Amino acid sequence: MISNKTYQDLVSDLQRINRLRTALELLEWDEQVNLPSGSAERRAQEMAALSELIHRECTQKRIGGWLEELGTESNTDSPECRTVLREARRNYDRAVKISPEFVARKAALDSRAYHAWAKAKEKGDFYLFAPFLQSQLEMAKEEAILIGYNEETTYDYHIDKHDPGLTAAFVDRIFTLLKVDLLPLIRQIVDSPVKPDTSIFKGYPREGQEKFLRQISEKIGFDFSRGRIDTSMHPFCSGNGADTRMTTRYDIDNPLNSLFSAIHESGHGLYEQGLPPEHLGTGLSEAVGMAMHESQSQMWENQVGRSRAFWDYWEPIFREHFPAQLANVTSRELFMAINSVKLLPIRVDSDEVTYNLHIILRFELEKKLFSGELAVNDLPEAWSDSSEEIIGIRPKTVVEGCLQDVHWSGGAFGYFPSYCLGNMIAAQLWYAVKEFHPDIEEDFAKGEFGRLVKWLRENVHSKGRQYDTLELTRQVTGQELSPHGLIRYLKERYLPLYS
Amino acid sequence: MISNKTYQDLVSDLQRINRLRTALELLEWDEQVNLPSGSAERRAQEMAALSELIHRECTQKRIGGWLEELGTESNTDSPECRTVLREARRNYDRAVKISPEFVARKAALDSRAYHAWAKAKEKGDFYLFAPFLQSQLEMAKEEAILIGYNEETTYDYHIDKHDPGLTAAFVDRIFTLLKVDLLPLIRQIVDSPVKPDTSIFKGYPREGQEKFLRQISEKIGFDFSRGRIDTSMHPFCSGNGADTRMTTRYDIDNPLNSLFSAIHESGHGLYEQGLPPEHLGTGLSEAVGMAMHESQSQMWENQVGRSRAFWDYWEPIFREHFPAQLANVTSRELFMAINSVKLLPIRVDSDEVTYNLHIILRFELEKKLFSGELAVNDLPEAWSDSSEEIIGIRPKTVVEGCLQDVHWSGGAFGYFPSYCLGNMIAAQLWYAVKEFHPDIEEDFAKGEFGRLVKWLRENVHSKGRQYDTLELTRQVTGQELSPHGLIRYLKERYLPLYS
Repeated sequence: MISNKTYQDLVSDLQRINRLRTALELLEWDEQVNLPSGSAERRAQEMAALSELIHRECTQKRIGGWLEELGTESNTDSPECRTVLREARRNYDRAVKISPEFVARKAALDSRAYHAWAKAKEKGDFYLFAPFLQSQLEMAKEEAILIGYNEETTYDYHIDKHDPGLTAAFVDRIFTLLKVDLLPLIRQIVDSPVKPDTSIFKGYPREGQEKFLRQISEKIGFDFSRGRIDTSMHPFCSGNGADTRMTTRYDIDNPLNSLFSAIHESGHGLYEQGLPPEHLGTGLSEAVGMAMHESQSQMWENQVGRSRAFWDYWEPIFREHFPAQLANVTSRELFMAINSVKLLPIRVDSDEVTYNLHIILRFELEKKLFSGELAVNDLPEAWSDSSEEIIGIRPKTVVEGCLQDVHWSGGAFGYFPSYCLGNMIAAQLWYAVKEFHPDIEEDFAKGEFGRLVKWLRENVHSKGRQYDTLELTRQVTGQELSPHGLIRYLKERYLPLYS
Repeated sequence: MISNKTYQDLVSDLQRINRLRTALELLEWDEQVNLPSGSAERRAQEMAALSELIHRECTQKRIGGWLEELGTESNTDSPECRTVLREARRNYDRAVKISPEFVARKAALDSRAYHAWAKAKEKGDFYLFAPFLQSQLEMAKEEAILIGYNEETTYDYHIDKHDPGLTAAFVDRIFTLLKVDLLPLIRQIVDSPVKPDTSIFKGYPREGQEKFLRQISEKIGFDFSRGRIDTSMHPFCSGNGADTRMTTRYDIDNPLNSLFSAIHESGHGLYEQGLPPEHLGTGLSEAVGMAMHESQSQMWENQVGRSRAFWDYWEPIFREHFPAQLANVTSRELFMAINSVKLLPIRVDSDEVTYNLHIILRFELEKKLFSGELAVNDLPEAWSDSSEEIIGIRPKTVVEGCLQDVHWSGGAFGYFPSYCLGNMIAAQLWYAVKEFHPDIEEDFAKGEFGRLVKWLRENVHSKGRQYDTLELTRQVTGQELSPHGLIRYLKERYLPLYS
């Protein structure tokens, strides 16, 4: 470890800035969980003021000075220090290219666009949101140019922003590969005469759902002494390992929605809680990227949460919470309903098989929005056309179509691919775990999840950002990131159920 | 109005800083409402980092430059500008005397001391909190000295901090006056053979309490589209008119506790929501001081909320929420229980008559803590002795004694007197309202509160900080701040009930 004062000064400033960042994140969390409807404008102003200030702190000349003094990261033998310096330099180099005015404008837009999206969705009117989406798209391009990308590669910047090192071309290649095997597999499943009955999920009071999902979340290892679960329109996980805020949402006629959202967000939460707390604020305590983050949430949601072993343990408890609702439902009927595969217009309602099509749809549209091939005002039509082509369903309304997701309202372009890449990594990690612990599923049947958490902690969480997405995947699984693991897993899980 | 650029720059910076402040306040709100137990240390660090940054913004040389350029406030004829400049100058002059290091240390201490207090209260062990209280007292004295007070007047600084212009000597004088009439009045009431039966308040489920208090809070005018009510260990109101966060707490065997806390906090909330929103961040949109703030909460809680007219309207609704619990309770029994006067060890459980003794007790102890006559470690004993002497009750435990209030954990010395001064102002304002609207209580009986809100808006809220506590009281009531109104009001309200 470099032990000189300059390095310590740098780290201590990074930690201080990180505290300001998580303060800002709390404002964002509160905006989605608690904010009174009439307070949106004020919150936008608060977040803009704080974002601008944080940006100013991140771009202070002294940070540049320290980084220069510390030279290139190769000056040190410690891989930890190299990670800290590499990430600090990358962040600094990018931050100084963005003006405080841009940051304040972006923060204010994020907040206003979120509320415009929520209103547009409520009213079913895309054009209430369109001008905000247009502004987000323009700012996203502007940001990419400022950072040093050119007109043709602005979308690459946004892919890289969520998953350092990845490009649109890489995603394109891997999605094309995925489609080759995924489309026939989906055909095979949806054409099967086996049709799970999801109408069994009617009238599950919220109280029971809340208790049940909390039991599961606790049992799989989410630490509620350093975290919470609340309710929001769109489930998410924010904060850090010291204070992790998850959300879910309740529908009395869809208890799986709140449940799997909670398990999903618990997976994110476990990652955050597994990052080394002593390094919070540096690259050593930051997730690799969103694809790896999604691999964690997806593995808990799918490989674990939809497995037979998992439900061997949880089914009796689920029945205790909802004895009347489940009285005439057999164990097989319940399990099939949990693993129902069905082409649907809404991404978050979709199963883990068809889900990937939703991501491919969004990726295609994002590419076109960035290239200029598609205008924001034409999005509803383009979405419907693509949905029909890729998923085979034409959404009935914009609420079922291009207004369904929150992401673009926050300018989070290039984020969606992470979900599908995360699915691939999750499957690859899953086979790696099973190689190490061939009997891991027997744990789940006993309600034990400690060995899996430990393996993930050691192999993924504790690594922070020492390696990028592709390198960490390679190191842990011994394979390149590819769709093969996902296809193998989906076949092994679903073909027996649907034949 | 001064319309030059310097003035606009100053105001716009004050508004920006205010947005950062309310961001910090949200962190404090969240700490008391939502924070997971294991996240306290992280929150302390976040608040320290943000406080330090805000302090740096407040003490920027350019603010000093603008203020100098704008000269003394007498340079302008506009009273609004004079107020803005006077307050800005006062805040700036004080802020520059405090180092960033002090601010960060204080913020971290506030957060840690709060959690130490909560733990000490839970365990009933004062000495878990004593070192934090000691630190708070030392920092409070240090702050006063830094601002320019001397060793003998450190407590004056803290009185002035909450109520600009007031001193410990003034409070001493007015409390001495109050005691002359209050002590015999209390004697007369508690010696009365009339003993309200408060045992009728058993088994009032939280859900009903929540609904009822929200109905009242809405009806008296609190705007829930710009505010919320949540639950915390100690009820409070924070935020600003654009996003007002109140709290209460529930006890199924004490529905009046949650209710009157909510009415009280609604009074604070109405004041915040009544300050001119366009001037937020300047003295034109800031409450006069804590005594005036408390006058608002106390008037709604007491003069309004405990009146016969108020309950003529609300009693039937209360009975609808709790038909079984109130089935055998007569209207008079209910009203007497609402207006029960009883000497109790806990301030927040006390009625509006004996409440003032609790404040006198705290004021006496604070004076001694600041003069050094009383050591922190001797506080439990001193509290018990004073409680016995002033209230006539020796607390059984420290939880009933010196650990009962949250204030000192946040270093809020000099705040308690505001409650009692607020009671006095509330009574004075009450007689002023009644002079203007002699039939105002008839409104309450019809569930109408608009005329009262309007009067308070016009005479108090809209004034911001244009006048100080004494001057505004004089202007609105035509009288000097004194205990006479309070004594008159207490006699008129309670003597008929207890004779």
